[in-house]
Amino acid sequence: MTEPILNVLAERYASPAMCDLWSARGKVRMEREFWIAVLKGQRDLGLKIPEGVIEAYTAVLDEIDLEDIRRREAVTRHDVKARIESFCALAGHEHIHKGLTSRDLTENVEQLQVLRSLELIRFKSIAVLHQLGELAERTRNQVITARTHNVAAQPSTLGKRVAMFGQDLLCAVERLDDLLLRYPVRGLKGAVGTQLDQLTLFEGDVEKVRALEKRVVDHLGFSRLLHNVGQVYPRSLDFDVVSCLVQLASGPGSFAKTLRIMAGHETASEGFAKGQVGSSAMPHKMNSRSCERVNGFHVILKGYLGMAEGLAGDQWNEGDVSCSVVRRVMLPDAFFTLDGLFETFLTILKQFDWYEAVIARENQHYFPFLATTTLLMQAVRAGAGREAAHEAIKEHAVSTVLDLRQGKIARNDLVARLGNDPRLGLDHDQIESIIENAAALTGAANLQVEQFLADTEKLTNTAPEARTYQPGDIL
Amino acid sequence: MTEPILNVLAERYASPAMCDLWSARGKVRMEREFWIAVLKGQRDLGLKIPEGVIEAYTAVLDEIDLEDIRRREAVTRHDVKARIESFCALAGHEHIHKGLTSRDLTENVEQLQVLRSLELIRFKSIAVLHQLGELAERTRNQVITARTHNVAAQPSTLGKRVAMFGQDLLCAVERLDDLLLRYPVRGLKGAVGTQLDQLTLFEGDVEKVRALEKRVVDHLGFSRLLHNVGQVYPRSLDFDVVSCLVQLASGPGSFAKTLRIMAGHETASEGFAKGQVGSSAMPHKMNSRSCERVNGFHVILKGYLGMAEGLAGDQWNEGDVSCSVVRRVMLPDAFFTLDGLFETFLTILKQFDWYEAVIARENQHYFPFLATTTLLMQAVRAGAGREAAHEAIKEHAVSTVLDLRQGKIARNDLVARLGNDPRLGLDHDQIESIIENAAALTGAANLQVEQFLADTEKLTNTAPEARTYQPGDIL
Amino acid sequence: MTEPILNVLAERYASPAMCDLWSARGKVRMEREFWIAVLKGQRDLGLKIPEGVIEAYTAVLDEIDLEDIRRREAVTRHDVKARIESFCALAGHEHIHKGLTSRDLTENVEQLQVLRSLELIRFKSIAVLHQLGELAERTRNQVITARTHNVAAQPSTLGKRVAMFGQDLLCAVERLDDLLLRYPVRGLKGAVGTQLDQLTLFEGDVEKVRALEKRVVDHLGFSRLLHNVGQVYPRSLDFDVVSCLVQLASGPGSFAKTLRIMAGHETASEGFAKGQVGSSAMPHKMNSRSCERVNGFHVILKGYLGMAEGLAGDQWNEGDVSCSVVRRVMLPDAFFTLDGLFETFLTILKQFDWYEAVIARENQHYFPFLATTTLLMQAVRAGAGREAAHEAIKEHAVSTVLDLRQGKIARNDLVARLGNDPRLGLDHDQIESIIENAAALTGAANLQVEQFLADTEKLTNTAPEARTYQPGDIL
Amino acid sequence: MTEPILNVLAERYASPAMCDLWSARGKVRMEREFWIAVLKGQRDLGLKIPEGVIEAYTAVLDEIDLEDIRRREAVTRHDVKARIESFCALAGHEHIHKGLTSRDLTENVEQLQVLRSLELIRFKSIAVLHQLGELAERTRNQVITARTHNVAAQPSTLGKRVAMFGQDLLCAVERLDDLLLRYPVRGLKGAVGTQLDQLTLFEGDVEKVRALEKRVVDHLGFSRLLHNVGQVYPRSLDFDVVSCLVQLASGPGSFAKTLRIMAGHETASEGFAKGQVGSSAMPHKMNSRSCERVNGFHVILKGYLGMAEGLAGDQWNEGDVSCSVVRRVMLPDAFFTLDGLFETFLTILKQFDWYEAVIARENQHYFPFLATTTLLMQAVRAGAGREAAHEAIKEHAVSTVLDLRQGKIARNDLVARLGNDPRLGLDHDQIESIIENAAALTGAANLQVEQFLADTEKLTNTAPEARTYQPGDIL
Repeated sequence: MTEPILNVLAERYASPAMCDLWSARGKVRMEREFWIAVLKGQRDLGLKIPEGVIEAYTAVLDEIDLEDIRRREAVTRHDVKARIESFCALAGHEHIHKGLTSRDLTENVEQLQVLRSLELIRFKSIAVLHQLGELAERTRNQVITARTHNVAAQPSTLGKRVAMFGQDLLCAVERLDDLLLRYPVRGLKGAVGTQLDQLTLFEGDVEKVRALEKRVVDHLGFSRLLHNVGQVYPRSLDFDVVSCLVQLASGPGSFAKTLRIMAGHETASEGFAKGQVGSSAMPHKMNSRSCERVNGFHVILKGYLGMAEGLAGDQWNEGDVSCSVVRRVMLPDAFFTLDGLFETFLTILKQFDWYEAVIARENQHYFPFLATTTLLMQAVRAGAGREAAHEAIKEHAVSTVLDLRQGKIARNDLVARLGNDPRLGLDHDQIESIIENAAALTGAANLQVEQFLADTEKLTNTAPEARTYQPGDIL
Repeated sequence: MTEPILNVLAERYASPAMCDLWSARGKVRMEREFWIAVLKGQRDLGLKIPEGVIEAYTAVLDEIDLEDIRRREAVTRHDVKARIESFCALAGHEHIHKGLTSRDLTENVEQLQVLRSLELIRFKSIAVLHQLGELAERTRNQVITARTHNVAAQPSTLGKRVAMFGQDLLCAVERLDDLLLRYPVRGLKGAVGTQLDQLTLFEGDVEKVRALEKRVVDHLGFSRLLHNVGQVYPRSLDFDVVSCLVQLASGPGSFAKTLRIMAGHETASEGFAKGQVGSSAMPHKMNSRSCERVNGFHVILKGYLGMAEGLAGDQWNEGDVSCSVVRRVMLPDAFFTLDGLFETFLTILKQFDWYEAVIARENQHYFPFLATTTLLMQAVRAGAGREAAHEAIKEHAVSTVLDLRQGKIARNDLVARLGNDPRLGLDHDQIESIIENAAALTGAANLQVEQFLADTEKLTNTAPEARTYQPGDIL
Repeated sequence: MTEPILNVLAERYASPAMCDLWSARGKVRMEREFWIAVLKGQRDLGLKIPEGVIEAYTAVLDEIDLEDIRRREAVTRHDVKARIESFCALAGHEHIHKGLTSRDLTENVEQLQVLRSLELIRFKSIAVLHQLGELAERTRNQVITARTHNVAAQPSTLGKRVAMFGQDLLCAVERLDDLLLRYPVRGLKGAVGTQLDQLTLFEGDVEKVRALEKRVVDHLGFSRLLHNVGQVYPRSLDFDVVSCLVQLASGPGSFAKTLRIMAGHETASEGFAKGQVGSSAMPHKMNSRSCERVNGFHVILKGYLGMAEGLAGDQWNEGDVSCSVVRRVMLPDAFFTLDGLFETFLTILKQFDWYEAVIARENQHYFPFLATTTLLMQAVRAGAGREAAHEAIKEHAVSTVLDLRQGKIARNDLVARLGNDPRLGLDHDQIESIIENAAALTGAANLQVEQFLADTEKLTNTAPEARTYQPGDIL
Repeated sequence: MTEPILNVLAERYASPAMCDLWSARGKVRMEREFWIAVLKGQRDLGLKIPEGVIEAYTAVLDEIDLEDIRRREAVTRHDVKARIESFCALAGHEHIHKGLTSRDLTENVEQLQVLRSLELIRFKSIAVLHQLGELAERTRNQVITARTHNVAAQPSTLGKRVAMFGQDLLCAVERLDDLLLRYPVRGLKGAVGTQLDQLTLFEGDVEKVRALEKRVVDHLGFSRLLHNVGQVYPRSLDFDVVSCLVQLASGPGSFAKTLRIMAGHETASEGFAKGQVGSSAMPHKMNSRSCERVNGFHVILKGYLGMAEGLAGDQWNEGDVSCSVVRRVMLPDAFFTLDGLFETFLTILKQFDWYEAVIARENQHYFPFLATTTLLMQAVRAGAGREAAHEAIKEHAVSTVLDLRQGKIARNDLVARLGNDPRLGLDHDQIESIIENAAALTGAANLQVEQFLADTEKLTNTAPEARTYQPGDIL
């Protein structure tokens, strides 16, 4: 076979920064840095490493020949051994990996990939929140007909709707921040977790082994260390990570579904600059392709979570590698997916458009119905009998709906009907004014947007460059 | 239909405390307390509530007639309305639920059930950790043959193995603690989240609405409040909760699987007091029925997580009730499952037994192989040539394994073979002593157990009654 | 604890027929029938069963005291033993369950519950298909604006849309029929699947053991028998069953989502008889509560599939009971869920309503855009230059869309604009007539509905009573 | 970015044949063949296609420049359009894709990939079954201690155990065969499923459109055609396919888990030729790496099933592309996974080894316990009192177990104890002979293996080349 099959998620959707973290080459480089860090630590703590050895390894750090490694793996049927051999052959020494098992290497390096990826995801999340804040700001005065059960329910504002989905993401970022503070690394624990091999190397000197482990963990950039592990760290940590990714996709997911519905009503759209249209042939057709893709990414993420679930709580004794092939797929692909989702979603937010005139028509159509409780209250204040007024409103509302559905009328004329009914004691202008005020019946929406902006601002201050982050072009 | 179908998880496995939190009666009572709290708040903040009304509702708080509610729901096809009517009919007033939508009631009360359940789960988790600590303490000196790939790898201790699975749970409890600190409640937000109805009741006085909401949230016992929601709180919070439950099951899950494997080797068992046997007919048969059940519970939990996944990120506009039937099933059942798992697991820990003589036989069988690297080192120190010694060890180890598998020998005689080989320059006693010391080659296992005990103790101090918690009898 | 926690799915949504199949009492009865069938078979094949024994058991078949069984289980910690004891105590004999293991009983009886439930589900599926056919027939002439990406795409008919979702269900019923033909039962295989105990009873006479097994399998109503099993049948069969249930929910799921979207446009609704409205207060509010519930049921089903996945491919040796608690929950609850879904969906179909006038307005709004390719063709036929005509159409379509979105016009006036443009060479009436014919541009929709009706009819003939099946009232 | 991220599953595990079916190049070729098939059909049915056009397209069929397509997609943001342009640019014509929508192309071609992949999977499944048959044949006389709850239960044979897992796969292949017979293709249905565009092309001639569709479906090799679809075929078909793949992994999954357990007892192993050992350093260490990988693949597959679940039942109106990115990942990767699983599993079966002497020791250890019921029966026949004999057996069995666990004895001496007890009335030789016959107490195991061989043979006859299929080398 000649043509390689590429990773679709990496090639089409994820950002270069995320791809770099999970590329074969990137990982080999991280491993080599890890080996050198261990070697230096071992030397500094008293192990005899001949002069020039560390320098020799360092000199070939970037000479990464994936094909050579592949060939060696085909022989040894052991991927770590292949990478050790390849590095040693280049350096002309055999000093790395002393007192290490394969897992001492791979567990820590993979956790490093996870940590770095989580940090990148945090950055993207904040970029998204910042854009959501901008959008909520821009749309906070756009009164809309809010819907429950997908049917008109009460007035709200578009900005409030945006902030509502932003709230979902805010909650998820809080979880991510908790995770980043907690996320502990496995460290140098040996074949079954007892640190026997390092202890043997250091002739039983526990303090030296601890010092070495601390150096390496510091090198990796972790602040917390697991104490009791076997060959592997608990796979429930992978589950913790991937379930956090799924949660981060929830706010964008709901936003995207809602925008797909709004596009169906032509009240808003993704991806078309103001004044533009869908296509010249079908100018009305504002296909929410990117929103659909966001929802697709969410489905994919849940699949990877299923894989993470399959590993957690399934450790036999001190561990094995039944998780290996799963993690090779699940970890990078879950990060590629959420990264691609955020890239796509940022483009949606950047190009989001809404159509005031269409929204106004929708409001005109529904506000008379939504304002009936207010009308009743005003009618009673103006002197009408409560029961009579209630009956009048009910009659007219029902008959207006029926006439609309049966095509007897083309537009909602409830205002006129009520204005003509003496039982309410309100004239047409009074009613019209109440309905227009209905537009103002958006309750605390504006204050809530304010709160969202403040929360977002506070978070963005922890990663200020996220304010100006620009997503890559999407396919 | 005559015989009701009972909830299997509640009836067979969950504790009474957990069942109470989710019983129909318990929920109705929480709702009524909520309504009265709102009513009191509304009165104190200036709404006119006639004399005696609150007292009338309070007087019938516990008169809960589920059949009456059911009958009313069959008519109204609306469960909340049915419960309002039933309470009002008893009190002889119609003052509750003012300015509330159904979701103002149900969202908050359901989050209260979740919060209380999480607190109960935290308590149980700590009880489990405490028992794991006790067991690790009891077994810290029991040297075992640790296994990777389910095959003998290096010596360790049973206590370390216990601590290793405890570490998994410790990580999950940290996540739970983060969640408990974060978990925010929806509050009184009205039909589409804008608080319009309460604002209308209080004639636009935002401060009063905020004060009312604060009172109610305090009543429920939440410390954090969501600001931007629609009809519902983001369902990603349910996902956060259920995924946390799944994670809490991971440590017990791995422990149970490993104990099932150990029972297969007769090195340990669940559920038989010291000196007892499986059954008189099949005394060797130590069926790990409870461990199997723990693993089964874990599978169930993952199913409920699948339901939670199906809801997160699927909010249309300001929300609907497509989540309703799912949450009716998923929330209680997920908590029943984990509660049942912990009850079962506590019984396992209480009755856990291990068989020193069988473990000793296993160690005798494997330690000669596991000690080969140490033997090599000692032989070289004693003057043997490294290559010759390595070759000798390799030859004898391989031939011993082959002879064992082919039945030529019945017990591992590697020690004798090596003692007879001049290439090593070690006599039989020297070798025997090294092998016996292999038992001591458990590295930092003991120190790691120490660390686990310290971590567990610290956590248990936050819930000291967990130390003496006794699980219910299991079926 | 006093109040039992009921199974929500059974109590609120499933039909009595389905509940009966999974009730504790129903299962005990099936087991007793199974024991008697085995006993009779053993007697007929030569085992000595004293006179009157079978009669004694038969006499107490229906004396089922669940509380007695529960008490016995609390003592024995073994549910099957408890049920044997209870039956024997009533009969005054100890002859049942000879040469049987627990699993010989439970596997077969549970497979019987599955088989009967699948048959009931098949019946319901056909009832649903029949109603879909009726609805497709009623709506086959209702031209609609079909949507892709939730945006107007081409004309179709409502009947075709119904048939499209029906097609999904048709495919799933074909799978169900395949499954029903294949579904094999475990039979009397003994503790590890070798039939040792029955062979011992019959002193090694293989033919007699086979004959006994055949009798019992016939009694259960299975046509196929597994030959090679262990203690349990392969759990992949449960996965086969539950995944089939999930698939059956797909067509109704897509129908329900689409109807929720249509309700948002007021083009159709569930659950309101012609001429009725949502509620007197909010007459426009056609909440798709039942459709939302159907989508919720689908989410639940997928959760149970997750449980089935957790069991398949996880058999250790000849099997254990780690699947036991999972199957206690998953099997009944999955069937209750799909049964409840079908009951709800049948009510939706019965009460489905659509609003011709609203649909007509939607068609009027979109058909001018959808007909542009036809207009171009006709213009060219009428002598216009292709490029000029294309340019004219494009210009007017784009400006019409922009004017609509910007509120400059309230209704689509593309027809008038095109009529006034000499480049097309078509007058207003010609264009109007083409647009009106657009309504006829529904391609093969009608023929496709025809095909659906034929396919459905053919299937319904295999279960003719499904034609008149009426769902229970829904909450 | 320089280095492409490869698809791990394709690169490391799947066979070249499977990779070819899903390669970018392979798919482009299939699409081009599809376009040409449509073009020929259209010409033959009367559409005017200029002379030389079809030839021009045919001539450049294999000139596939993926980079060119990628560049075009970056401009058009539409992958199908990019591939049309690329093909047309090469051919120098613009005649393909007439009356087709994107989905007319992609749905059918993707279903073709699925169909071909299913056929390949069927072939592999049969190769696996054939190898299982061979192994069952080789091991049918190897008596083993069968286990339930992972604890010795009754004698069986290794061949029977193999056949038991084979039975699981047999059931799954039956399901696959049903699916292959049923699997229907979408056909040329146009933008919303009404075939409008083809009907317009053929001026309303339904018969010609049907004839064209039939030609194309025949070209693809499908026997069944969907009649009622929208833009897309029901995604429940993808679910049907992927859930079938998951089911096919179940038998190998259980086999692999059991072999991992057996390796822990050193009764069997994967991957070492007879007489070989694990490694020279750790010759006892028979790591079940490939079995672990098989279990890992199963976990991965379930993740992809989660993705398929997320799509089924989620069609809005006539469809959209929210499924697109999901299917790009899920479909190829699910097939790569199962293909990789089968490749790995075939290697395991080829190299499977078992250790008669170790098995014999296990049998010796457990058979005395397993034979107690037989001993009781024989003692009674020989004249002992039933109660006394039962008591004697019980006493000795319990005390033997206790002595073994407490290390008082090293080997099971129950036989001797019973021989010395006058209550049984059986001498040592008689008992020994019964125990030895216990080895023969494998019931119908042999007959069951026979049945498995017959079933497998019958199936293999439908794909005889599967007999000699050799898996690729595994990493």
